[in-house]
Amino acid sequence: MSDQPAYRFAVNVTPKPGILDPQGRAVERSLPHLGISGVSGVRVGRRVELTVRAADAAAARTVVDGLAAELLSNPLMELFEVEELG
Amino acid sequence: MSDQPAYRFAVNVTPKPGILDPQGRAVERSLPHLGISGVSGVRVGRRVELTVRAADAAAARTVVDGLAAELLSNPLMELFEVEELG
Repeated sequence: MSDQPAYRFAVNVTPKPGILDPQGRAVERSLPHLGISGVSGVRVGRRVELTVRAADAAAARTVVDGLAAELLSNPLMELFEVEELG
Repeated sequence: MSDQPAYRFAVNVTPKPGILDPQGRAVERSLPHLGISGVSGVRVGRRVELTVRAADAAAARTVVDGLAAELLSNPLMELFEVEELG
C-alpha cells in the first residue's frame, strides 16, 4: 500500500450553532482584560490534520469523511468540514 | 463601533512539527480497531472562529493576528494560521 499516493487533509470540527461552547465563552470573557474590543461570536473547535494513502483523491476523501463522522466529531453536538491541503 | 463592518475569521492552531501530540497519537492508535488503514501523520489542534468589527479588513486582521499570538496559541509549542472566512 505504501506505493499509493498520499493526500493531506484537514478536518475542521466546530460546535453546532446553538450548542453551548464554554471555551468560546472563556475566550470572549478574557478579551476585555487584554484591552481587545469588537470581537464576538467566538467558537472553539478542533482541527485535525492527517495523511491518507489511497488509490486516488476520491478514495482518500472517502476515508477522511468516514473518520471525521465516526471518530473525530460528535454528530450530536458538532459539525465537520473536510479540506484538502495543498 | 457597531456600525463598523464585521469580518469572520478562523484561526487554525496546530502543534509544531516535532512537538509531541498525544491526541494525534491516540487517534492513530484507534484506527486499526475501526478497520481503517493508510492513515498517518495525525496532528490534533484547535480551530477558533470569530467575528471582528473594525474599520476595514486590514484592521480586523491585525486584531485577529494579535489575539492568535497572545491568547489562542502557545508560541512555544504551536503554530497558527489565520484564514478569512467568506
